[in-house]
Amino acid sequence: MNGADSLCDTLLENDIDVCFANPGTSEMHFVAALDRKPQMRCVLGLFEGVVTGAADGYARMADKPAATLLHCGPGMANGLANMHNARRAHTPMVNVVGDHASYHLQYDAPLTSDIESLATPMSDWVRRIQSADDVSGAAAAAISAANSGYGAVATLILPADAAWTETATPIQKAPPVQRTHVAPDALRAATEALNNGRNTVILLSGKALRSKALETAARIAERTGARLMAQQSNGRIERGAGRVRIERVPFSVDLALNALQDTEQLILVGAKTPVAFFAYPGKPGELVPENCKRIELTQPDDDLPGALEALADAVGAVGATSTPITLLAERSDIGLPSGKLDAAAVIQAIGSLLPENAIICDESLTSGRDAFKSTFSSAPHDFLQITGGAIGIGIPMATGAAVACPDRKVVLMQADGSGMYTLQALWTQAREQLDVVTIIFANRSYAILHNEFKQVGAGAPGHNAHRMLDLDSPAFDWVHMANAAGVEAARVTTTADLSDVLRSAMARKGPFLIEAVI
Amino acid sequence: MNGADSLCDTLLENDIDVCFANPGTSEMHFVAALDRKPQMRCVLGLFEGVVTGAADGYARMADKPAATLLHCGPGMANGLANMHNARRAHTPMVNVVGDHASYHLQYDAPLTSDIESLATPMSDWVRRIQSADDVSGAAAAAISAANSGYGAVATLILPADAAWTETATPIQKAPPVQRTHVAPDALRAATEALNNGRNTVILLSGKALRSKALETAARIAERTGARLMAQQSNGRIERGAGRVRIERVPFSVDLALNALQDTEQLILVGAKTPVAFFAYPGKPGELVPENCKRIELTQPDDDLPGALEALADAVGAVGATSTPITLLAERSDIGLPSGKLDAAAVIQAIGSLLPENAIICDESLTSGRDAFKSTFSSAPHDFLQITGGAIGIGIPMATGAAVACPDRKVVLMQADGSGMYTLQALWTQAREQLDVVTIIFANRSYAILHNEFKQVGAGAPGHNAHRMLDLDSPAFDWVHMANAAGVEAARVTTTADLSDVLRSAMARKGPFLIEAVI
Repeated sequence: MNGADSLCDTLLENDIDVCFANPGTSEMHFVAALDRKPQMRCVLGLFEGVVTGAADGYARMADKPAATLLHCGPGMANGLANMHNARRAHTPMVNVVGDHASYHLQYDAPLTSDIESLATPMSDWVRRIQSADDVSGAAAAAISAANSGYGAVATLILPADAAWTETATPIQKAPPVQRTHVAPDALRAATEALNNGRNTVILLSGKALRSKALETAARIAERTGARLMAQQSNGRIERGAGRVRIERVPFSVDLALNALQDTEQLILVGAKTPVAFFAYPGKPGELVPENCKRIELTQPDDDLPGALEALADAVGAVGATSTPITLLAERSDIGLPSGKLDAAAVIQAIGSLLPENAIICDESLTSGRDAFKSTFSSAPHDFLQITGGAIGIGIPMATGAAVACPDRKVVLMQADGSGMYTLQALWTQAREQLDVVTIIFANRSYAILHNEFKQVGAGAPGHNAHRMLDLDSPAFDWVHMANAAGVEAARVTTTADLSDVLRSAMARKGPFLIEAVI
Repeated sequence: MNGADSLCDTLLENDIDVCFANPGTSEMHFVAALDRKPQMRCVLGLFEGVVTGAADGYARMADKPAATLLHCGPGMANGLANMHNARRAHTPMVNVVGDHASYHLQYDAPLTSDIESLATPMSDWVRRIQSADDVSGAAAAAISAANSGYGAVATLILPADAAWTETATPIQKAPPVQRTHVAPDALRAATEALNNGRNTVILLSGKALRSKALETAARIAERTGARLMAQQSNGRIERGAGRVRIERVPFSVDLALNALQDTEQLILVGAKTPVAFFAYPGKPGELVPENCKRIELTQPDDDLPGALEALADAVGAVGATSTPITLLAERSDIGLPSGKLDAAAVIQAIGSLLPENAIICDESLTSGRDAFKSTFSSAPHDFLQITGGAIGIGIPMATGAAVACPDRKVVLMQADGSGMYTLQALWTQAREQLDVVTIIFANRSYAILHNEFKQVGAGAPGHNAHRMLDLDSPAFDWVHMANAAGVEAARVTTTADLSDVLRSAMARKGPFLIEAVI
């Protein structure tokens, strides 16, 4: 076998059997190797931002990494924005980036670039493969890295000559990740804080936002009077009717400061101290009061649900398993919207018509600010967000989630400006016949930037500002776009039409797009 | 004024009056500053690859840089691939990348990343602005850097607090670039080589490929018997009927080796020694014979046309101005195609129907391999290529070229796989009503990779290889896509229809797309 075969076998040996790909010449030996391994599912993206965003969505739902296949520095560069989101979501991901043969780099051929410099900011781990014999070991190390901590982005650079050279090195198995127990000191500090009667927030993220862990956290909150909150952005939350009703830290600085103003103690479980998304003159960077005490209950390698169980034990919230948790959301149908079609109406329709066990992907941004609140009591679902602020994750993330969970309906709430970034992913949905309903919030502007422009105090937007913030001239036609990619679609301009079309889209299988003109 | 005003004024003071933009929150003060300066033309791209690719196309034709406006590390990352092409084309470009306020970086907010690490591989010059007072000096330095040498990509990082803080620093003027004369030693070496009777190739790129410089080079060639060639990839060539008929170094390694096999001496004028685009087992990296003597006639800051004039003087090719140059291409109409619609037929139709003084942008890749030969005798035109191998330059480059030259027809030859990368640029063409005819070579595959797959010796593509190399399931509908973006379009499947539609597209003004199913 050659190095490319060795890489493919190492991925399969370590339970990575989906490869989102956009290959080029330097990866052709790896493509040939994949071709010899039908057990590897290869999913083509027509742009690298699709590839990395799909790998993110896949891993959030599959709880294991996908591989990506990217072509040289510029090809990887196209995927960096969604690698950034994945890194911020702590998504496990193994990127394979083909490069020139090692001896060819000296010639500075046109596609040559410093891949390490490009990869490092958006990767937790980067390694260049040294030879065909090094392939399997390096790949196993990448897989270990991806699965370590809260989850990590590992980038492996594969020179063409390492791929095409023969090797007899045995296929390496990455050692399974050993989750650590919560540190006794951290547990003691958190327990003391919860028992001292001060105003305490338990801030959760990562695997602490799965339904069972949330129930443990809810028991702790009920026993101690602490408040539960989720980070502003999270890779995945299990929520909806019958699950713990947990608020997120608001995106707006003022709202977040308000929500956290009385916090004397902050217990972090897989989460970071909340900070402002952007700096604004005269406003603080950290969103908890300056003298708030912070306690990190967990470290990245810790078993988060286990840490919460230990904390529940320590504060005497055990035995409460038979007691109903009052923080669970009750199911209630918010009903279908009436009146004008606006963002709130779209969200209401989604909340009302959401099928059981759906996956909501959210890149609705300004339009969807209330989407979280409106779906507390909807059918139970997973909720996947944009995590790193790099727009263009929505359509790819939904694509990847649908690959991971073919039996679940994926519902994507997508802002139009952000959706433009990686619309090529619709083609992958059509090709793979993925069960995704995409709802475009077509406000035909960068609405978030209109808000920010107001904050700057420059008054009403003039000619140049309009030219940079508005998308209405011409309005982009999402129905034509979806059709171009082979996805059926409809445009709606009334609440009644929206409800009708959405109901039928929820009932059918396969990709569908709704352009909601709001 | 604040730092953002200072930046805008510095750009305008230095004759940069077009800004291709995709702003975000951190750039809002700069957007407000641009709004106060109607003399700055702001052109919105709905994805950053559009922004940087358009800035490349603009500067190739305007012979001066545009500014770009990009949002934080991930936004710039989306523009890196076309920054890479621009750098390889030696295109002058000034990127303004907004970042968090300097004091906010410590919080590692979600959008934070190491912009310098990302920017450096695709920039010739990177600088982070230190304060509002530093803005104008830094911007002037960026403009100097962009205009230096053969042309360079300069990236300026603008922290939000530098943008919003008041400053009284005077607006800086970048010193004009002083072109240097060809070095006497280099001139002597080239002259000796041209006089010693050995087999010599003069390899040209950059401004040596403008029509007047090419005529000088042609006189040198006629006087000395040297062969003229252009680099494989070049930012811009002035060519067509009445201009020097110059071949490029072939893309294929075997063809290039063949074309250069007898070369004993290589004189480089703004060009680099030709190398293989990719390494292949058993084939050399450099494409000239090992013992070929290389002479660099010019250095990056040299005046290339002046260097050729000096060389013409030195070899006695002066006074020849009255002698007709036999290397000029004569005008001849190759006629309209008949028979099957294939890539050659599309190229023939373009060559025949090309209007006077058009700008051809070429990202046709495999389909357009013969496009260069087929347009030697077409109406005089500029020819702009993909230069760095980072696909997705075509539609943006045509967009930028049309912004630079509103009175000239831009004709884009676009491969379908590459066109998918940055199709959002069609919307900018519609919004700005740019005079671009885009011809999609719709072969519905990554044809170049099928060729490369064959080379690997893996036999016929199997399931996984097909899934990664073919775009036919579903076929992407370019007419619907163009319509979605507000661009009129037609699909053609016969040579007769192609000729009809292309003729009418050439005759009208404004954007039009033709999907040629080949």
